[in-house]
Amino acid sequence: MPALLILSRRAGDYHALVAAARLPDLSIVPATDVETLPADAAACDLVLGEPSLISRALTRLPSLRWVQATWAGVEPLLDPSLGRDYVLTNARGVFGPLMSEYVFGYILAHERLMFAKWAAQQERRWDPTPPGRLRGRLIGLLGVGSIGAYLARTAKHFGMRVRGYTRSSASCADIDEYFHGPSTGSGPSRATSRNGDDLRRFAADLDYLVSVMPNTAATRHLVDAELLAALPSRAVFLNPGRGSVVDEAALVQALTEGRLAGAVLDVFQTEPLPADHALWRTPNTIITSHTAALSFPEDIAPIFIENYRRLQAGQPLNYRVDFDAGY
Amino acid sequence: MPALLILSRRAGDYHALVAAARLPDLSIVPATDVETLPADAAACDLVLGEPSLISRALTRLPSLRWVQATWAGVEPLLDPSLGRDYVLTNARGVFGPLMSEYVFGYILAHERLMFAKWAAQQERRWDPTPPGRLRGRLIGLLGVGSIGAYLARTAKHFGMRVRGYTRSSASCADIDEYFHGPSTGSGPSRATSRNGDDLRRFAADLDYLVSVMPNTAATRHLVDAELLAALPSRAVFLNPGRGSVVDEAALVQALTEGRLAGAVLDVFQTEPLPADHALWRTPNTIITSHTAALSFPEDIAPIFIENYRRLQAGQPLNYRVDFDAGY
Repeated sequence: MPALLILSRRAGDYHALVAAARLPDLSIVPATDVETLPADAAACDLVLGEPSLISRALTRLPSLRWVQATWAGVEPLLDPSLGRDYVLTNARGVFGPLMSEYVFGYILAHERLMFAKWAAQQERRWDPTPPGRLRGRLIGLLGVGSIGAYLARTAKHFGMRVRGYTRSSASCADIDEYFHGPSTGSGPSRATSRNGDDLRRFAADLDYLVSVMPNTAATRHLVDAELLAALPSRAVFLNPGRGSVVDEAALVQALTEGRLAGAVLDVFQTEPLPADHALWRTPNTIITSHTAALSFPEDIAPIFIENYRRLQAGQPLNYRVDFDAGY
Repeated sequence: MPALLILSRRAGDYHALVAAARLPDLSIVPATDVETLPADAAACDLVLGEPSLISRALTRLPSLRWVQATWAGVEPLLDPSLGRDYVLTNARGVFGPLMSEYVFGYILAHERLMFAKWAAQQERRWDPTPPGRLRGRLIGLLGVGSIGAYLARTAKHFGMRVRGYTRSSASCADIDEYFHGPSTGSGPSRATSRNGDDLRRFAADLDYLVSVMPNTAATRHLVDAELLAALPSRAVFLNPGRGSVVDEAALVQALTEGRLAGAVLDVFQTEPLPADHALWRTPNTIITSHTAALSFPEDIAPIFIENYRRLQAGQPLNYRVDFDAGY
C-alpha cells in the first residue's frame, strides 16, 4: 500500500484535505519538520510538501518514488548533490490569481499614491493630489506562462495595454504585442542568445515591468543595467518571480539615480534579505519578503489528489519537473 | 449661434478636447474660475464645468439653457436659493473603472498587509507574515447603479462573492445575491422605509462593505450604528460615494471599539475634513481626501460632445438630472 509522508509546516491542513478525499489504499504520515520526522517516514514512497524541508529529508527516504512539491519553485531539490531517482512534480496553475492580486495591488498603490496619502494623513493634512489610473498604462510581462497569462487578463480588465516577452508561444489573447527571446536557454553566447534589441524594444515606453520568469541559466540577470536603462524613468519594476533574474546592484543604482520610478520586490538573490543589504535603504523600493504567492493548502491539495489518482491509474503525472531544465 | 462657457480648473484641457471635435456652430469661452469670468460669458447659453464653480456664476448667466456638469455629484447646483430654469446633465457611466481602481486597490492593500509590511521595511525587518487574498471573500455593494455594477464585475474577476443592496432593479449578472431597500425614498417613516431587517441580512458576514449610494434624503445616514453593528468585526467599510450616507460618530465609535477592522474613506460630511475631526485619529482608518474618482477631461468631454450633438438634433440629452430627486 502506498504510504504518503506529508512534510510541511501546514501538515495538519494538508492531512485534513487529503484525508477528506478518501483516496484508496493510502496511508498518511504527517510531519511539520525534518527534526520531528516519525520513524515510519522511512517506509513512505510518496511525499507531499515543501522543497526546502524535503531536500533535507531525502537521505532518510530510501523508498521514495514520487514527490509532489507544494511550491512552484523546486530549487532546493535541484542541488546536484541530491539524488534524482524519483519523479518530481510541482504546483502550477494555481498562482495566477495570487500573483495578480500582488502585482495589481502594488500597481494600484503606486498609481493612487497610497503611501504619500498615508503620510499626509499622519499629519492630519487633507491631500487632494490627483492620483493616476491604470487605464491606458503600458505593462510589460517578462514571461508569459500561466501566471503571465493571468496577469495579462487582469491588466486588460483594468484597461491597460499589455506587452509580453517570451521565448515560447504567442497564444495569449490578452497580450497586445509579443516580443520574443531566444528559443532556448543554451546554445549561442549570452550577448546573442539574449536578443538584446528585442528586449530593448520590449522595454521602451513601459509604465510597468513585471518579471515572472523561472529561475534558469537563461534568465539569470536578464533584468540588468542594459534592460533597466531601456525603461523610461517613470517606470516601476515588480518582481514576484525569482530573485536570480535581477542584477541587484544595477537595480539599486538605477533607483538611486532616479532612472526608475520604483521597484516592488518580493524575491532576492539571498533570502531573507540581509539586514545590511543596500535594497533596504534604496529610494522608492518596496520589499515584501517572499509573500507574493504563498501556497494555500486548499489550492495545492487538489493537485496532489489528482496526481495520486493518475499514479494509481498508471497515467502520466501533471506538472512533472525536468531536473535539468529546472522547472 | 450657441456659445459655450467652459468653467473648470482644467478649462484648457476641455477647450482642446471640445475644439478637436469641430462641433458645428459653436463658439467657446474658457475660464478657470468665477473671478476671472470674461465679459462675453454673459452671452453663453451652454456651460460645461464643475458644479462648485457654476453655482457661483449662475446669476451672471442670464442666457443659460443647458449645463453639462463634469462631475457625477451636482449638490452645489441643488441649493434651493439657486435658479433651476435650465437643463442640467451630469457625468455618468465613466466612473466605474476609476471607482474600481480605488476600491480594489485599498481592498488589496488591506489583504496584502501593505502598510504593516511597509512599517516592517522601515525597520529593515524581513516580514514573512502571510497575506490574505480576495478569492472567496464576500463584498457587499450599497448601491448597484453603473458604478456598483462595475465594482461587481471587478469583484468577480478576483473570485469574490458579491451581494448588492438596491431599491431598484436586480439585473446585474455579477451580483450573486440581491437585497432590496424601499422602492422610494419618500413615503413611510424612516424606520419602516429603511427596511432594517433586509439591510441587516445584507450586512451579515460581509468582509467588505462599499457604499456607492447617491446623496439623497433616503440614503442619509444609511450607514449608522445599527448597520455597523450588523457587520462582522473582520469587516472593512469603504466609502468612495457620498459622505452624507455615513453617521460619522457611529463609525468612529465602531472603529475605536474594534467592532470593525477598518474604514477607507474618501468623502465626509464636511470637506476638507477639519483638522480636529475625530476621524483623523481613529484607528485603522484611511482618509483619501475626495480623490477616489476625479473627472478626467478625456472621459468627460465625449459626454458633452455627444450631448451637444443631441441638442442640435433636438434629441433628449443623456444623463439629465432631476433637481428634486437630486441625481
